[in-house]
Amino acid sequence: MVSVTFHANGADVVIHAAEGDNLLEIARRANVAIDAPCSGNGACGKCRVRLVSGELDSPRTRHISDSEYAEGWRLACVSKVVSDVCVEVPDIASAYRSHMRVADISSEKELAIFNRTKEEIQASGIEFRNGLSALTVELSEPTPDDTMPDNERLARKLCELLGVEKAVLSYSALKDLARVLRENGFRARCVVDVAGETAAVLDVLPPQDAAPVAGLVVDLGTTSVAAALVDMESGAILAKASTGNGQIRYGADVINRIIEASREGGAERLQKAVIDESLRPLIAQMCAAAKIESRRVYRMCLAGNTTMNHLLLGLFADPVRMEPYIPSFFLADDFRANELRLGLHPEAKLILAPNIGSYVGGDITAGTLASMIWNREELALFIDLGTNGELVFGNNEFLMSCACSAGPAFEGGDISCGMRATDGAIDACTIDAETMEPSYTVIGGESPVGICGSGIIDIIAELFRTGIINGKGKFSREGRRVRYDENGMGSYVIAFREETGHVRDVEINEVDIDAFIRAKGAIFSATMTMLNSMGMDPSVLGHVYVAGGIGSGINMKNAVTIGMLPDIPEEMFSYIGNSSLSGAYAMLISDPAREKVDELARSMTYLELSTEPGYMDEFVAACFLPHTNASLFPSVQQG
Amino acid sequence: MVSVTFHANGADVVIHAAEGDNLLEIARRANVAIDAPCSGNGACGKCRVRLVSGELDSPRTRHISDSEYAEGWRLACVSKVVSDVCVEVPDIASAYRSHMRVADISSEKELAIFNRTKEEIQASGIEFRNGLSALTVELSEPTPDDTMPDNERLARKLCELLGVEKAVLSYSALKDLARVLRENGFRARCVVDVAGETAAVLDVLPPQDAAPVAGLVVDLGTTSVAAALVDMESGAILAKASTGNGQIRYGADVINRIIEASREGGAERLQKAVIDESLRPLIAQMCAAAKIESRRVYRMCLAGNTTMNHLLLGLFADPVRMEPYIPSFFLADDFRANELRLGLHPEAKLILAPNIGSYVGGDITAGTLASMIWNREELALFIDLGTNGELVFGNNEFLMSCACSAGPAFEGGDISCGMRATDGAIDACTIDAETMEPSYTVIGGESPVGICGSGIIDIIAELFRTGIINGKGKFSREGRRVRYDENGMGSYVIAFREETGHVRDVEINEVDIDAFIRAKGAIFSATMTMLNSMGMDPSVLGHVYVAGGIGSGINMKNAVTIGMLPDIPEEMFSYIGNSSLSGAYAMLISDPAREKVDELARSMTYLELSTEPGYMDEFVAACFLPHTNASLFPSVQQG
Repeated sequence: MVSVTFHANGADVVIHAAEGDNLLEIARRANVAIDAPCSGNGACGKCRVRLVSGELDSPRTRHISDSEYAEGWRLACVSKVVSDVCVEVPDIASAYRSHMRVADISSEKELAIFNRTKEEIQASGIEFRNGLSALTVELSEPTPDDTMPDNERLARKLCELLGVEKAVLSYSALKDLARVLRENGFRARCVVDVAGETAAVLDVLPPQDAAPVAGLVVDLGTTSVAAALVDMESGAILAKASTGNGQIRYGADVINRIIEASREGGAERLQKAVIDESLRPLIAQMCAAAKIESRRVYRMCLAGNTTMNHLLLGLFADPVRMEPYIPSFFLADDFRANELRLGLHPEAKLILAPNIGSYVGGDITAGTLASMIWNREELALFIDLGTNGELVFGNNEFLMSCACSAGPAFEGGDISCGMRATDGAIDACTIDAETMEPSYTVIGGESPVGICGSGIIDIIAELFRTGIINGKGKFSREGRRVRYDENGMGSYVIAFREETGHVRDVEINEVDIDAFIRAKGAIFSATMTMLNSMGMDPSVLGHVYVAGGIGSGINMKNAVTIGMLPDIPEEMFSYIGNSSLSGAYAMLISDPAREKVDELARSMTYLELSTEPGYMDEFVAACFLPHTNASLFPSVQQG
Repeated sequence: MVSVTFHANGADVVIHAAEGDNLLEIARRANVAIDAPCSGNGACGKCRVRLVSGELDSPRTRHISDSEYAEGWRLACVSKVVSDVCVEVPDIASAYRSHMRVADISSEKELAIFNRTKEEIQASGIEFRNGLSALTVELSEPTPDDTMPDNERLARKLCELLGVEKAVLSYSALKDLARVLRENGFRARCVVDVAGETAAVLDVLPPQDAAPVAGLVVDLGTTSVAAALVDMESGAILAKASTGNGQIRYGADVINRIIEASREGGAERLQKAVIDESLRPLIAQMCAAAKIESRRVYRMCLAGNTTMNHLLLGLFADPVRMEPYIPSFFLADDFRANELRLGLHPEAKLILAPNIGSYVGGDITAGTLASMIWNREELALFIDLGTNGELVFGNNEFLMSCACSAGPAFEGGDISCGMRATDGAIDACTIDAETMEPSYTVIGGESPVGICGSGIIDIIAELFRTGIINGKGKFSREGRRVRYDENGMGSYVIAFREETGHVRDVEINEVDIDAFIRAKGAIFSATMTMLNSMGMDPSVLGHVYVAGGIGSGINMKNAVTIGMLPDIPEEMFSYIGNSSLSGAYAMLISDPAREKVDELARSMTYLELSTEPGYMDEFVAACFLPHTNASLFPSVQQG
């Protein structure tokens, strides 16, 4: 046995392990968060740790430069412990949890999009009404001649006021009833949830209580989690917040998460990670901001992909990824949110946006509502660019969906200098055709440490436009910022380490570009396959709605340039923000919206690309800039 | 500040207190169980502790003899700490928790009574059926052409098998679904609860699972708690157990408990006491005996008096004891049992037998069902002798109830050598009219340490029959066993300390007899007042059913002799065991029985004795042996 010390977040975690054990596995056993989006196969290079003392059996990899290796940097996933060791773990997880910019409603721009979506949904005739409300009652005081017990006295009054047949007191309501009534002259503020002819009485509060009747909406993404606290009566946003998905250290994509979940105790581990590290802190943060107790949250609506839904609930998710791809549920019966130990009101219901298949989940059904494509005659495409890419095509007569494994490239995964859209990420870039010098913007405004999805789109589009790379993504010009390694692999340096003061140049190489081309090819070929299955081509598209975590900074023209989005006029593209969050918001505060999403989910057909004839050919044809069939991209010209 | 050490149950508990603090209060703060049925006013003499070191400001009381005082015995409730002290606490609480004999179904005799009651209820046409059952299903395996999600696949099959419209999966069921199906060739055992057209699916288990679908029935008494684990499908008793009510150290009767509950944090303290010290251990014990996990308990029915119901739920109970005596509820909407942290199945419902007033609660409504008086033409009286005395009078046309505060005398409270019906208690006694020598039986068969309720009835009846005491309860004969103190107060020694080897004589004195006469007078005057209110007298009674904790050893003839029960032929009395437990059992396993109890509760009128003209006169007249109006007891002759 050897002793392994992880120095992380300013604290030491010591654990014993057998000689030869894998360092990443040991870290997981010790519950030390190491970012490992590829789930430990040496592919992504994100699980860097620095050896402080002792010895690791750790090969050199392309992800660690010689000087870095000399400084002690190793990839945890390919390292075996051979002696007592101490390693330092960069605080990546907490860094992106606190600084991550996700498509939520925290920026003015995103908020405007959110509000426009909300108005459009209402304008379509979907009423924003739900059964929750608070009302103040005044009861007659009991006398020796009127000895009706408190619960009956209240129930009768509420039936009268609400026009319902029955009022049922929850345990919470009954618990406070006698004291509240007697301390306030038989007046009280009641939080009720009316459904049909029954009012569930959730809380009995002093009449002077004025806290909002709150609801919680969550977009549970594979990478990031966005949430808002909502006033269930007015629909107002009381607080909003976002964070990373605490499961990230168990894999960047859904497949790796499911594999981890299938291991001994894995389902509990992944459930705990998202609940304890993401949801509970988000709830605490928003409740503090809104100055309410979390038990004053009476309803919760969550939209997530099918895998996230399963892992959140701690379900056995293997069947989701294995033929014939059967989830435990599409539409789940309502649970109480506190089954997940969230600290909400004990009777708070958890509403899950419905899944329609193993790879098209609640984030897409909720997002489809927000996209409004179901309400228009024109044929439109709704693309959600998350860790996976999901597409919905149709109009007010039909809806068809599919999913493609675009992989983590849009979020910076599989890209050597890729990173999520956090501080230090290059998120937009242009390159001067003559000088080949870049100009870029960096999130947070400081010197760049990496490139996020929208930055990569821009860089590749600009490299292509300026002829620095060709249609295959290979470098074809020479210059100060273009360099080739001993194997002839080209790369472009956006920022030299001398310019940034960081340890590494920020660059993009042919392997990165290739990975990205495959990702954009997956999206475009999915689009084509769906259109082809209907005997259509991109010319039928009246509009393309782009949503998702990548979206905020996306340059649509550049996305067309690289052949990711179809070549239709720029004004036909709209970025619709976090459609999953907007859709779930509507489901939270509007019972008719919830019914509409369930209806959309039932009517939506699902195209399984992996078994669709022609998809592979489409994919191969799309793995080129912009496309092997240049006629599909008449507007794109290489410089 | 001084330091107070309690040596209890072989462990030391040390707590700091202010000089002058009351020792009983300190013990409560330290959560040390000291038996204090009178709730600390020096009346009952039960809170004995032995001073080991240090000093207490503690007056002598009639409850502590001189030699006992010299040995260090003090009453905690009248002692103030004046220095660092160490006191020894007799292990009374745990002693009666583990050894207490309550009217449950643990003896052959009680079990026979229970089974007879069960048969009688069924014979009346009340079907023993409930919605819970387990069934094994076999589903078709999904294929690429049949990709219905697991929950829908199961729900459809269950709807078909059960003939219901809808099957709703609980979170627990969904959680295990995918794995159980796939590990067992899509076969599973499902625990369902069918209500109307909906089947709630509570658990999905491997097909080989054979554990019973269990339910839990509890009789929550002020003093003792009896419970049984029941097979919800067959009705069979899987395990049974009884214990003391953990709230006992906060007062023997409901009034003292409510007062304690109204203090800061009191409601939580009393709730915790009964849950953690009584219910959870009972459940654990029975589940271990039946070899099932507690989460396999799917329903719970509890019968308790109105105060116990309130304190169990942690409700503010002050209005129950204060004019106009308004409980929080008569009939509570079903809660989930786990709101009380009982470790049962998360969806297990808690059914409470309905209260009908502040002093006639669920124990009586459930007991009324078991008494069967509602099903007969003959007029009958049902008396439940617990810590309170409750009476129901009527037949198949009407039911009238009342409650009298008989006090704790029937359970040995307020009696100097009184004790509960545990090992060491004299439970039956005769006295030779000539020699005045007693012969008695002792629970557990060892030498006697005190007298329980049925023993006290026998002793007083025998003392009266033999002329040792007169109708006022005063001693009027001389002899070896009769003695008088300096104030002329007489007493009768049943067992001299030399005979028993214990530190005290077991005796009964005039103060004890007086207390007991008041208790029996309360019962009899309640009977008379109820009959009078209808213009009737005891001759109308076709039968008297006696139930409750005292009952098992009760000698009906002696109870008539002392004027506690009306003077009707001996064969017209029946002891019906723990009617509260039998009634709750029926409510647990039979939905129609539950409806019947709710119906009985709604139809039952309540006579408030304290405001009933004539009651006080009746009470005063009944405080005599057998009664001041001897013509009411023609069969009773004094020796």
